[in-house]
Amino acid sequence: MSKRISGILTPHITPVDRHGRVDEDRLCGYIDWLIERGVDGLYPNGSTGEFVRFTPEERRRIIRVVVDHTAGRVPVLAGAAEANVKETIAACDAYGEMGVRAVAIVAPFYYRLSDQGVYAYFKEIADTVSVDVTLYNIPMFASPIELPTVIRLASECPRVVGIKDSSGDLPFMMRMIAAIRPMRDDFSFLTGWDASLAAMLIAGADGGTNATSGVVPELTRALHRAVKAGNIDDAIRLQYQLLPLFDAMLGLGEFPEGFRAGARSRGWDLGPGRVPVSEQQRDAIARTQREIDALVSGVTECGSGKQTVLPADTIEQIVQRVLRQL
Amino acid sequence: MSKRISGILTPHITPVDRHGRVDEDRLCGYIDWLIERGVDGLYPNGSTGEFVRFTPEERRRIIRVVVDHTAGRVPVLAGAAEANVKETIAACDAYGEMGVRAVAIVAPFYYRLSDQGVYAYFKEIADTVSVDVTLYNIPMFASPIELPTVIRLASECPRVVGIKDSSGDLPFMMRMIAAIRPMRDDFSFLTGWDASLAAMLIAGADGGTNATSGVVPELTRALHRAVKAGNIDDAIRLQYQLLPLFDAMLGLGEFPEGFRAGARSRGWDLGPGRVPVSEQQRDAIARTQREIDALVSGVTECGSGKQTVLPADTIEQIVQRVLRQL
Amino acid sequence: MSKRISGILTPHITPVDRHGRVDEDRLCGYIDWLIERGVDGLYPNGSTGEFVRFTPEERRRIIRVVVDHTAGRVPVLAGAAEANVKETIAACDAYGEMGVRAVAIVAPFYYRLSDQGVYAYFKEIADTVSVDVTLYNIPMFASPIELPTVIRLASECPRVVGIKDSSGDLPFMMRMIAAIRPMRDDFSFLTGWDASLAAMLIAGADGGTNATSGVVPELTRALHRAVKAGNIDDAIRLQYQLLPLFDAMLGLGEFPEGFRAGARSRGWDLGPGRVPVSEQQRDAIARTQREIDALVSGVTECGSGKQTVLPADTIEQIVQRVLRQL
Amino acid sequence: MSKRISGILTPHITPVDRHGRVDEDRLCGYIDWLIERGVDGLYPNGSTGEFVRFTPEERRRIIRVVVDHTAGRVPVLAGAAEANVKETIAACDAYGEMGVRAVAIVAPFYYRLSDQGVYAYFKEIADTVSVDVTLYNIPMFASPIELPTVIRLASECPRVVGIKDSSGDLPFMMRMIAAIRPMRDDFSFLTGWDASLAAMLIAGADGGTNATSGVVPELTRALHRAVKAGNIDDAIRLQYQLLPLFDAMLGLGEFPEGFRAGARSRGWDLGPGRVPVSEQQRDAIARTQREIDALVSGVTECGSGKQTVLPADTIEQIVQRVLRQL
Repeated sequence: MSKRISGILTPHITPVDRHGRVDEDRLCGYIDWLIERGVDGLYPNGSTGEFVRFTPEERRRIIRVVVDHTAGRVPVLAGAAEANVKETIAACDAYGEMGVRAVAIVAPFYYRLSDQGVYAYFKEIADTVSVDVTLYNIPMFASPIELPTVIRLASECPRVVGIKDSSGDLPFMMRMIAAIRPMRDDFSFLTGWDASLAAMLIAGADGGTNATSGVVPELTRALHRAVKAGNIDDAIRLQYQLLPLFDAMLGLGEFPEGFRAGARSRGWDLGPGRVPVSEQQRDAIARTQREIDALVSGVTECGSGKQTVLPADTIEQIVQRVLRQL
Repeated sequence: MSKRISGILTPHITPVDRHGRVDEDRLCGYIDWLIERGVDGLYPNGSTGEFVRFTPEERRRIIRVVVDHTAGRVPVLAGAAEANVKETIAACDAYGEMGVRAVAIVAPFYYRLSDQGVYAYFKEIADTVSVDVTLYNIPMFASPIELPTVIRLASECPRVVGIKDSSGDLPFMMRMIAAIRPMRDDFSFLTGWDASLAAMLIAGADGGTNATSGVVPELTRALHRAVKAGNIDDAIRLQYQLLPLFDAMLGLGEFPEGFRAGARSRGWDLGPGRVPVSEQQRDAIARTQREIDALVSGVTECGSGKQTVLPADTIEQIVQRVLRQL
Repeated sequence: MSKRISGILTPHITPVDRHGRVDEDRLCGYIDWLIERGVDGLYPNGSTGEFVRFTPEERRRIIRVVVDHTAGRVPVLAGAAEANVKETIAACDAYGEMGVRAVAIVAPFYYRLSDQGVYAYFKEIADTVSVDVTLYNIPMFASPIELPTVIRLASECPRVVGIKDSSGDLPFMMRMIAAIRPMRDDFSFLTGWDASLAAMLIAGADGGTNATSGVVPELTRALHRAVKAGNIDDAIRLQYQLLPLFDAMLGLGEFPEGFRAGARSRGWDLGPGRVPVSEQQRDAIARTQREIDALVSGVTECGSGKQTVLPADTIEQIVQRVLRQL
Repeated sequence: MSKRISGILTPHITPVDRHGRVDEDRLCGYIDWLIERGVDGLYPNGSTGEFVRFTPEERRRIIRVVVDHTAGRVPVLAGAAEANVKETIAACDAYGEMGVRAVAIVAPFYYRLSDQGVYAYFKEIADTVSVDVTLYNIPMFASPIELPTVIRLASECPRVVGIKDSSGDLPFMMRMIAAIRPMRDDFSFLTGWDASLAAMLIAGADGGTNATSGVVPELTRALHRAVKAGNIDDAIRLQYQLLPLFDAMLGLGEFPEGFRAGARSRGWDLGPGRVPVSEQQRDAIARTQREIDALVSGVTECGSGKQTVLPADTIEQIVQRVLRQL
């Protein structure tokens, strides 16, 4: 039985050049930077990677580049959802052969499937592929994977080795853990909702696939290690530092533009992305870059241990930002 | 200025063979049947056509087959949404060259874009392509296209010649008509929500893109013609006949399985589709086929003029179905 | 068997004086004005009447005043929901003795009850009271009364003689009519969603309980009479006139402040109401009064027959208002 | 400045006799039992106390009885929402004179007020009353109190000394704490969502107002004390024990019927309540009583220290219950 997937896996942005093409050199450089800063794995073709905005061929190339360049330094969790069950299965097997640790498959989207349909979809995949599968639950974008469906798939399908849950619903996570952990010691519970990362880990989750780890990998790593070491106070303090940064990046332009801005704060220009933005949105992003810079800078200094409390001016910033919304 | 798109355009199912491949012969036969029964246009690669479950190459082939086989008998409205703006623009231009009357572009899905993002997306497409564009609003599946966005696009983009709205929201339709008709006589308002078809037409909509027209094209045509001729009582009676059939087909298995069952009632086996269904769902569909058969048969006899009131046993069926849900 | 409740019944605002007390003189004057302008009934203690913001004693007094002053000129439909089943039943019986045509009972609110709970609530009331009962479905504020529940109550309870539905959901209305009309000729279908009034009446509803009828009773009456006379074009034209006024009043401050502003446009100062508004909201209401005045004035001139089309500057107003939201 | 409200305050059920009248003797006995088992305060006329189903006179009497009988042993937080601002203010002042520690005021319900309206409502109350006020945010039942509104009220109103938040939204709680704690050391953050109690306390909340504390006060007390003592593992283990009990009680019949069943498991028959239940619901409650008994019994033995892990058969029960929903 394989070891449980754990730690912080980064659902990273897919860099594109000024022509909108995947920028493979930058992708490799960015991956190196993430691994050097301690991420526990990489998760290309996730929501942050804008998987739906690339073509099937591009998606496959992205995984190839990431797997080859990573060269086993950290495990790769490959987003593998394609247009239909057959195409998804083909992608899974291709990625398995490339050497990914597992694939992550989002529930069917566009149409909202019933619980039965979601079950049938994952069941067919899990019974066919020759690679480990993690379920990807993100009810704000795709058909929800309800608790009974997760339990049933965990019971019936050895290939299903985990769930990445981006609902942010802590009791839901605890219900899954309570029901599945006793029967599947190899099953991994990962949270994709950065705002609840500490709480999820404290409640027993194994790790997270968090977009903020592509911006402040030191902080998310420190937070994960703090919980695992039992330093809960530290973990909570780090969570309080992460939250305003996550909120600011999530609210900026169209997702994942804010995280792209966050990467710029760390010196990474990952290109324009493939999300359409209006003139007004472009202006707003430019105006907010300095705020993101300040938040990122405050946070990375804290995370590095140079500073141990949330700086007073960061608090002030949060209050001011909130008050501006009044 | 082109003539306004009007009448009932059928967002038809994409037939697949037992291997899951597009069944081009059956597609051609089905199209002939629809045209013979009086549909005013065809709408391949719509939601009913499961566009997201086909590959980009398959989608392009489907439009090619439909345009060629239709050969100008009725206009073709081609669903043209692809993975990103650039790919969508390429598809639009390809379909324009094939000779479609217009393309229909669903708002970005998976991610929920802001109003600004939805505007930016359509604006970039409309300013670039060389084919007429209809907006496709379906807020239960994709980012909503809000009223101000529709008005703004209608004001700024001559290429945007209509909207297909599947929200079923009658006041929203009336607000659009009140704001846009005075400035754009060529702008077409189409409803994709069959349950409100008569009401939308009575309120001034030009037509509909209705999945039921792929099953009972006689009825939807009769309904449209009744409103245009001012026979409102007839239109309402037809709407009361359409509603239980629509409800039954919509509620069966995963969309568009129920409409596939409806086509079977008319003698068209369009194959298994590409939607995953569980054992239990397959059984439910089989059990319900007879009910759908009865509804379709009642409705088509009515629509043909042999019968003018909703048959008593159909009413009874409706009541019983509802009571079973208690 | 009593005659079916039909026509436009006005859920009128409860006038209060500057001390916040019910202004009974103004209430009587306002009622006279409404009856003179042709409303088919009065509906005190509805949502527009802010029933939840008055005490049980005040609510009872309001019905007493309305019944006595109306003196049989038009039927009274009395909002009768109280804190619990027992209190509600007592209010129903009190209102029955006062001589109301029927009571209207909103589904339990605050808590969202299950379908079973909603059924149990109405069943107990309907089996106990000695007055006719109409169900009041307003899912945006109270527990929804689902289709099977309505059908079951209509089947089992002779005292339940109608439903006032404020969902605005046209297919839901048609499903109710299709299922209940064949078994209950005395059952009345009323819509409380002014934006769909014409469509609901065309589809077979008997009438409406519409807040706009407290502002432009001539127009809502004309609309109802137009449908009943088969003048559908007129009805739709009137609906297009009603819609921007309804939208403007609904969107102003806290409900029903906009309708209070509408009454002011007709010369009725009904007092400050009991809804808390901030300084900014008060300013917004004052600023918008002129727009409401213009809409009301345009509409009442149309409704009176002096004018038959939506005035061009009203259309312009609508477009401008919408564009301002961009 | 008063001490911050903290610990577990019980929003207790209001016992009624077989005639539906408030059972004052039982209320006093039940309060004694709760205080003996270590609750840190009492919260009569909360949602669990069915405040909306009692008359204004009954609500006032309930507070009188609880305050008098408690006699200062623990603080009382009195639910004080009435029909309108004026009545609510009068209730607040009456409760203040009776000697409650503070009142809790739910945001306006039935109508969904805008942020401006919610602000105006609380501002008027807070500037008028002579008792400490806690805001009560429960967005599933009442108008939501958004973050900027909470911050603004905390900034402007010294009388507002806390918030009871039943949204269960952990990041929302953390945003409130981050913004308000630096400026208001006396401001109390309480959670009303039992499923997240441990996480909220770990994140810095001061306590909770939790319906489960009326059933298993030992457990909720132990959980609170564990967090405060830094025994996070214990707190999480207790949360895992609380969760299935909370889920079972919440899902049973109409709220708060399940909690009434829970009280019966502890030997307290608090009467039939004032919530209408159908025959089928009554049967379901009876059938489920044994399951609730088992969960309560497992949980109280754990909480008392006799047992330290979640019993295997409880886990099995959870899994079985979940699987039955498939």
